[in-house]
Amino acid sequence: MSTDAKARASLPADALSLPGWYYTDSEHFRREMDRFFAGGWVHAGRAEEIPTPGDFVLREVAGESLILVRGDDSTIRAFYNVCRHRGTRLCEAASGNCGGFLRCPYHAWAFDLAGRLVAAPQMDDLPHFCREDYPLIGAAASTWDGHVFVSLAESPRPLEDALGDLPGRLRPWGMDELRLGRRTVYDVAANWKLIIQNYSECLHCPGVHPALQRLSHFLSGENDPANESYLGGRMSLREGIETLSMDGARRRPFLPGLSEADRRLVLYYAILPNLLLSLHPDYVMTHTLHPRSVGRTEVVCEWHFHPEAMSQPDFSPEDAASFWDMTNRQDWHVCEQMQLGVASRAHRPGPYSNREDLLHGFDRLVRVDG
Amino acid sequence: MSTDAKARASLPADALSLPGWYYTDSEHFRREMDRFFAGGWVHAGRAEEIPTPGDFVLREVAGESLILVRGDDSTIRAFYNVCRHRGTRLCEAASGNCGGFLRCPYHAWAFDLAGRLVAAPQMDDLPHFCREDYPLIGAAASTWDGHVFVSLAESPRPLEDALGDLPGRLRPWGMDELRLGRRTVYDVAANWKLIIQNYSECLHCPGVHPALQRLSHFLSGENDPANESYLGGRMSLREGIETLSMDGARRRPFLPGLSEADRRLVLYYAILPNLLLSLHPDYVMTHTLHPRSVGRTEVVCEWHFHPEAMSQPDFSPEDAASFWDMTNRQDWHVCEQMQLGVASRAHRPGPYSNREDLLHGFDRLVRVDG
Amino acid sequence: MSTDAKARASLPADALSLPGWYYTDSEHFRREMDRFFAGGWVHAGRAEEIPTPGDFVLREVAGESLILVRGDDSTIRAFYNVCRHRGTRLCEAASGNCGGFLRCPYHAWAFDLAGRLVAAPQMDDLPHFCREDYPLIGAAASTWDGHVFVSLAESPRPLEDALGDLPGRLRPWGMDELRLGRRTVYDVAANWKLIIQNYSECLHCPGVHPALQRLSHFLSGENDPANESYLGGRMSLREGIETLSMDGARRRPFLPGLSEADRRLVLYYAILPNLLLSLHPDYVMTHTLHPRSVGRTEVVCEWHFHPEAMSQPDFSPEDAASFWDMTNRQDWHVCEQMQLGVASRAHRPGPYSNREDLLHGFDRLVRVDG
Repeated sequence: MSTDAKARASLPADALSLPGWYYTDSEHFRREMDRFFAGGWVHAGRAEEIPTPGDFVLREVAGESLILVRGDDSTIRAFYNVCRHRGTRLCEAASGNCGGFLRCPYHAWAFDLAGRLVAAPQMDDLPHFCREDYPLIGAAASTWDGHVFVSLAESPRPLEDALGDLPGRLRPWGMDELRLGRRTVYDVAANWKLIIQNYSECLHCPGVHPALQRLSHFLSGENDPANESYLGGRMSLREGIETLSMDGARRRPFLPGLSEADRRLVLYYAILPNLLLSLHPDYVMTHTLHPRSVGRTEVVCEWHFHPEAMSQPDFSPEDAASFWDMTNRQDWHVCEQMQLGVASRAHRPGPYSNREDLLHGFDRLVRVDG
Repeated sequence: MSTDAKARASLPADALSLPGWYYTDSEHFRREMDRFFAGGWVHAGRAEEIPTPGDFVLREVAGESLILVRGDDSTIRAFYNVCRHRGTRLCEAASGNCGGFLRCPYHAWAFDLAGRLVAAPQMDDLPHFCREDYPLIGAAASTWDGHVFVSLAESPRPLEDALGDLPGRLRPWGMDELRLGRRTVYDVAANWKLIIQNYSECLHCPGVHPALQRLSHFLSGENDPANESYLGGRMSLREGIETLSMDGARRRPFLPGLSEADRRLVLYYAILPNLLLSLHPDYVMTHTLHPRSVGRTEVVCEWHFHPEAMSQPDFSPEDAASFWDMTNRQDWHVCEQMQLGVASRAHRPGPYSNREDLLHGFDRLVRVDG
Repeated sequence: MSTDAKARASLPADALSLPGWYYTDSEHFRREMDRFFAGGWVHAGRAEEIPTPGDFVLREVAGESLILVRGDDSTIRAFYNVCRHRGTRLCEAASGNCGGFLRCPYHAWAFDLAGRLVAAPQMDDLPHFCREDYPLIGAAASTWDGHVFVSLAESPRPLEDALGDLPGRLRPWGMDELRLGRRTVYDVAANWKLIIQNYSECLHCPGVHPALQRLSHFLSGENDPANESYLGGRMSLREGIETLSMDGARRRPFLPGLSEADRRLVLYYAILPNLLLSLHPDYVMTHTLHPRSVGRTEVVCEWHFHPEAMSQPDFSPEDAASFWDMTNRQDWHVCEQMQLGVASRAHRPGPYSNREDLLHGFDRLVRVDG
């Protein structure tokens, strides 16, 4: 209760949820896509997905198809998936290795892995044509502990500046070493902000997540003050519980860098605008949000494990994945019910409780009226 | 012909059908939903659907999800399906019994059957929080002879005022006693007004409904003068015909309150904006219109019978239901063909005949230019 | 190469492809439909489809349903599919014979094959009603060598004026004598202009159509100068190749009117806005474009043969149809990939090569800024 009092102390007495149009207005959605997604650093996958030169994946960011490709110099770059000749999509496959070149399927213009135009059939004999004038259009790409972020902004501030002290604090979990154990993709009929808000409070846990409530008491959460790049904090495992899994048992070693204290915690951070990072004693879960429309969000959930644990003959991600798959679906359901409700003419902003301080912080970031 | 001449006398010589955009413009549809549906008394079902306290049904009116629930005092109330905390839908099931409370699935706020907030976890310790400030938002609900109507208007005039002398005139059919025998739901690709217009003239009957024409001559209709709450009149059964059924035979007693004269008639009334009431000697049929978009209307058709007839071992609604199901589908089809045609740039208002006087009256009510 | 130099001489040095919004903006699509489709002569089928009086087909032009019907005087006429009473669609069947009258299914108004109102039940006794005031609304219809064109323009210039010298030059292929051998309908997720542009250059042929490239070298094409009614030219068959078919073999006689020189050519003409005409030594292929939205086009592809060839016991359209079906699908695919790419914020107009001169000509016709 002292935690509550402290948190509440920072909330104004009239802290209310957002008006409904924030979740239902298509024009406002486009503005948010421009401001938070096109304008920010968006989580776009893991570096391990494209380990060797020529490896690529396609990612959709703010309605744009981007090619993430590893260059001959091992650098990961991002390019718009648009040929400089007549605008055709260069890549169709969702992932693969393109060899040394991205070649347009229409008229065979070819670009190297740094985006330079290296072949343009029937163009070279034109007097005014210079290949140098037509490189691929790039986007900024940067990596933190194996997470790849991209930005469509003209001159984005460095990713490190945006992340602040978080990389140092999360270093013990050694995310760069981890490898993918399971991926599940969800199509959620809710605005992207509802999913972040849902992730940022556990007041709903007793009613919505009885199984989670048995593993960690919903009042055990302690939130950092909200800031403009991330929102989050930590919750404690109950006595006798070793991780978040169906039965609370842990089936693999602790992640190697964790202290005794870290081993009793689950950390939860929403890295704005689209990465939800959940750090457990023995695995890391990520949710990557891809807003598709004002009322629809694709959520890619991944479970990451230490390669040593994965190399054991009896390794399985199942305990972690099935617990969270159940919990995810419970969350999407209430988010979808809230999406429906806030569209009503009868909806008006309601009061936040002490346990919804991060939502109040988040709302301030996305408000357009102050 | 004298009837025709009389009716025509009240029509101006230049009586023309509405311009096509009344049936195809999405913006105008929203205005009509506000004016006629959100602003009027909308038919929302039958009281028999929720006989005991805690029984509820969901109804969609003008895009809003409403909960119709019977209270501990037996009164039927309507509430917007929106929690006062963060706006989540309170009810998901289309119908059921909620016990004594409507409880939000997200954070467990609970409301009693009169809409009062009675539990709000983690809120009560906040200094400025008063449960009394957060009751459910209600809508007006009123009942006439078993028909439940709701209004989203702030201060709707009483339902009785809107209905005028109609309840007295329809008293003999004893609709409050009747019980549901069959329900069929149709998805019609036509504007809601086309369905009301189609219902309001039988000039199309010889060509579109040959079976109906054998039971009642299309020129036997006599319309009341149109007024702002309802449109309708009566038609006579042909000699030897006892009701509207596949063969014109009547398979159950007359409704108990009918006079000799009433037993030879079928009454048809469009109660604006969304109830079509067809009173037969031995049963009552209702069509309830739920506009879904400018070009699409869900129509719920129900057949209601006297409980004594229904208690007979050989009772079946089949003769009435199959005759009207055939006739309904013939009507929806021409409505859909008219919906397609009025969208053309070649469409222009056409002349109404003597037999389309109710349409002219209806059009005057929905016209925005006078 | 001398051809290239000549073609390029007529292109300005800064010839660039169109900005992306020409292919993605729904408002602009509506303007194009008005200007090029409602305002021009649109290919609407073949006269052989309605050989006898009363035969009709429905065609959709610029969002309008038109009835093409052959009159008692053998003339083909076009009428909007809209009754003059209340606007209902007169015809539903895609084709058929209506007898001597088009009769509305709703209230039985009837029109003769010249569009005159001949019956209007319950109307004739109205003092001010004159049947002559309510004929069907017509559209212009005209025929060239078996091809039926319609125009929604008030006073279109004669079709012959629009076609210029083309009918004379294409006379040898005797298209009026040909008969339909195969029809395939495609649903292409691309703007209509992308399909015309794709048809108007063979620079993509080596990469996209390896089979076609084996039959005719992509540099063998010679284009006429673009003009406002049609774009096209001719390509030569390689030595030993007799027509465009899977193996380059010809399985039927030459079309009877062709000269020795004509027999070595394939002619390709885009008759604006919606007919692609491909004339082979032994058959004629047509693509008729029906734009459905800014990003979707229905394409009707037909293969037409000489009746004498069709009367042979071993006649089959298969060699021509299967070759082109494969080739069509390759084209639709790159058009769809270009449709996706030009929607990107990273897309900007790119440079045209010597082999894309017809596209530059076409773009000038559809540009709204000059």
